[in-house]
Amino acid sequence: MTAFNEYEAALKLRELVQQPLDLSQEGVLTPKRMEQMVATALDFKLFYGTERVDDRVLEALFELAREAHAVEKMHAMQSGEVINKIEGYESEERMVLHSAMRNFFDPQIDSEAAKQAATLAYAELEKLKSFLDEIEKQEFTDLIQVGIGGSELGPKALYLSLEAFSKPGRHVHFVSNVDPDDAARVMREIDLSKTLVVIVSKSGSTLETLTNEELIRKKFLDLGLSPTNHFLAVTGKESPMDDPSRYRQSFYIWDYVGGRYSATSMVGCVMLAFALGMDKLLDLLKGASAMDKVALQEDPLTNLPLLSALLGIWNHNFLDYPTTAIIPYSQAMSRFPAHLQQCDMESNGKRIDRHGHTVDFWTGPIIWGESGTNGQHSFYQLIHQGTITVPVEFIGFRETQYNEDIEFKETSSQEKLLANLFAQSIGLATGKKSDNPNQHFPGNRPNRVLMAKQCEPYTMGALLSYYENKVAFQGFIWDINSFDQEGVQLGKVLANRIIDQFTKMKREEDYEKEFPLGAVYLKQLKDL
Amino acid sequence: MTAFNEYEAALKLRELVQQPLDLSQEGVLTPKRMEQMVATALDFKLFYGTERVDDRVLEALFELAREAHAVEKMHAMQSGEVINKIEGYESEERMVLHSAMRNFFDPQIDSEAAKQAATLAYAELEKLKSFLDEIEKQEFTDLIQVGIGGSELGPKALYLSLEAFSKPGRHVHFVSNVDPDDAARVMREIDLSKTLVVIVSKSGSTLETLTNEELIRKKFLDLGLSPTNHFLAVTGKESPMDDPSRYRQSFYIWDYVGGRYSATSMVGCVMLAFALGMDKLLDLLKGASAMDKVALQEDPLTNLPLLSALLGIWNHNFLDYPTTAIIPYSQAMSRFPAHLQQCDMESNGKRIDRHGHTVDFWTGPIIWGESGTNGQHSFYQLIHQGTITVPVEFIGFRETQYNEDIEFKETSSQEKLLANLFAQSIGLATGKKSDNPNQHFPGNRPNRVLMAKQCEPYTMGALLSYYENKVAFQGFIWDINSFDQEGVQLGKVLANRIIDQFTKMKREEDYEKEFPLGAVYLKQLKDL
Repeated sequence: MTAFNEYEAALKLRELVQQPLDLSQEGVLTPKRMEQMVATALDFKLFYGTERVDDRVLEALFELAREAHAVEKMHAMQSGEVINKIEGYESEERMVLHSAMRNFFDPQIDSEAAKQAATLAYAELEKLKSFLDEIEKQEFTDLIQVGIGGSELGPKALYLSLEAFSKPGRHVHFVSNVDPDDAARVMREIDLSKTLVVIVSKSGSTLETLTNEELIRKKFLDLGLSPTNHFLAVTGKESPMDDPSRYRQSFYIWDYVGGRYSATSMVGCVMLAFALGMDKLLDLLKGASAMDKVALQEDPLTNLPLLSALLGIWNHNFLDYPTTAIIPYSQAMSRFPAHLQQCDMESNGKRIDRHGHTVDFWTGPIIWGESGTNGQHSFYQLIHQGTITVPVEFIGFRETQYNEDIEFKETSSQEKLLANLFAQSIGLATGKKSDNPNQHFPGNRPNRVLMAKQCEPYTMGALLSYYENKVAFQGFIWDINSFDQEGVQLGKVLANRIIDQFTKMKREEDYEKEFPLGAVYLKQLKDL
Repeated sequence: MTAFNEYEAALKLRELVQQPLDLSQEGVLTPKRMEQMVATALDFKLFYGTERVDDRVLEALFELAREAHAVEKMHAMQSGEVINKIEGYESEERMVLHSAMRNFFDPQIDSEAAKQAATLAYAELEKLKSFLDEIEKQEFTDLIQVGIGGSELGPKALYLSLEAFSKPGRHVHFVSNVDPDDAARVMREIDLSKTLVVIVSKSGSTLETLTNEELIRKKFLDLGLSPTNHFLAVTGKESPMDDPSRYRQSFYIWDYVGGRYSATSMVGCVMLAFALGMDKLLDLLKGASAMDKVALQEDPLTNLPLLSALLGIWNHNFLDYPTTAIIPYSQAMSRFPAHLQQCDMESNGKRIDRHGHTVDFWTGPIIWGESGTNGQHSFYQLIHQGTITVPVEFIGFRETQYNEDIEFKETSSQEKLLANLFAQSIGLATGKKSDNPNQHFPGNRPNRVLMAKQCEPYTMGALLSYYENKVAFQGFIWDINSFDQEGVQLGKVLANRIIDQFTKMKREEDYEKEFPLGAVYLKQLKDL
């Protein structure tokens, strides 16, 4: 295998980056350029005229994708090849089949593994449908999803994005943090007798989740409610949580669906189907599956996730921008950047390639962001005039969700929202000259804009998949394994050692000697 | 004035950074080191043994603070000198007196300006107390705060942090985004007949806020409710919003309190007093004021905001780490990082110094973060094993807020939460060697831990002030103006041009020619 820096296209790009396009130069950002640099797929348009690329850079980036066999690797992933591994070392050795969780609609992948995974996933959807029919008359109004990481972030981002489409009288809450105040706050707000609790842990052994489950079970028992009538498990088959004596029903997930890619498995589906109903859930899955198919196309000008991945690589590995901001101009999508933080940084925050070699280039960027226009009144000062360039990915929609807009001074709020989005995209690129150095905007800040008609289930499914596949493409091109997360293990090991120290301290045993560094913190706690 | 890079201490630091401390080396991170490197002020302890500093670096950093006259400048700020300006160019030319908003308790600053500002602020607090007494029997259950940027982020971060201490039956909601779905969602949830609406805009002309106000007023009128009984204004005296015919009461703010520093002015106080009651609000102000006094101390080992500022400068300007993660191990503080994003990045995301010269060093870092332990299941992979080093500022508390904790396997959730925090701090610093490259943790990731007893009003006030003053100190040392935000102007100007284009498009007038770049986006909208 060729290492990333040795691809011919990478050499070419390193040459081209010596004189990169300057968007702030007179005559560079023309209406013609912007009209031409729009890529389309499904109901999305990706405007990339405000990126620092010209035809030569684009051609080299497309060549990079071909040299790295990016689309072939995407096909291998969706087909169920064992790509979650590090050659020559002990590693997870798993398939990566989150795409199979939604591959029921006109499936294009015909491998046995993918078909089998889709069949199993569909059976869970049917179980879910029966369950929802069963509880239809029981007047459950609330659902608490207990899970952390991918069991919270993706599902919560989707729920908040689509809350406007909820069934009347149904609400979802999330408890994730081992911080006991998290569960306490949620349980104060709702009538537990009308509440379902979904415990989500693939292994059935996640510390935070089991701790919160105990805390909530205790509350149910204190209120004289039987947890078994209210608690559902989403877990691996035969995990410690797959236990009918403790859960009203178990829904299954598999080791070939990583936590951060699990929003369209039962991890997200149980909660979403409760809130939105089965039809809207199916729309969401349809959208995700449609974008998976887009990701199989060779041409980066129609394969939007690939195009986005390549533009990101140009910004990160060649223009040396360390972070990427994701800014949806939609308040409903306010937690989507937090989901992408996990999806991207946990996937691609790696230091070795798939052969165990330490890489000599930057892998995944730092992902951060908030919704617009809010960010404009916050960190945009730095984006416009700071000393570190931040490439921005904007997301926008033509229409509102609630249809409760008003006209104020001849334009609707939605139009004002969009005007702000477009203004930022242009202003970051062009800048503005001024004799007052404090009012001078250097411009040349790259950004792109992904637009769709409305933030509704099909579109959100597609958007979720767009980013999942973008992240996978970047990992394919860097030749890293985007599907494990060994980097979270050390913290777990050390935390367990300190938990033991807390226990010993309580028993008045010697807690210091086993882990003196941890003991320093524990001793200091007393004087607070 | 000496430019940042020319301070003798900066030269010394540049020399020292050639061989920086490596925390992952055997024998570096000892219990003794960690015990010694704890700074204390009020009820806070700052653990900085896990930063990449030794005595020589610390001495040079302290020297840098002296050379830059950091504490003198803090004194000048709190005294009301006109420090919000750029020498030789048109600029805001204002005092910076957010500290006066809480300087009622044993005041140490005796300048006329500061005293006068404090007197005015106290009068507003008394007005607020009378108002709360007046509505005590009117059964208002909800309050919607309408504001954006500093009128939302700081207040919302404080409210969520302290929601556990709310008066029974009182809830606060925030509407900020011009996205009309934001207000629609909030208004669906509550009984508007029992709701106060606080409109916050210093100028009385913020586009998003006025638009949302109209939207909410319309809803009140549709329901037959009189907005004048429900709406309050927080604004500048004699602004367009200072209008008794439209608001039940106006509370005042002044041009010497910047939006991102306004949480302890009426911008935050009206809402917090409604939710928590006057006594708890006063505790919060007391905590903030106490930390302002800490910020006046010469010795960085007791002046925690200064120590934190200096450690940040070492990480950012000398070790070249572009970002800083802020991670509170407290779910209640989940929105605090978003507030700090504004407070820090809008203050210090600047490219010129106070004399109008373009700087040749990095000003403010990119600030991001989420609560722990949640982040551990998300982006920590990159922090531990990624290719870009992220310095982390952890925040933790010994005790819970709700006191609804349980023991599970012999430890409480709060102990598990703290064990995780301490484990991360140590693990990031030491790393862990492994023959399997995927399980190798290089370590040497700097971090510090700020601990207090409990996340309650006094402590939150102090924490707010700690960061406000940390940001100010970094600005003083870089010699930039941390108190204006010219970088947000270009977006506003361009947005207004595109809003005009929307109007013209609707009137079927020619909207293209005035701003052809904006028109490209508008034309493409139609086909979505």
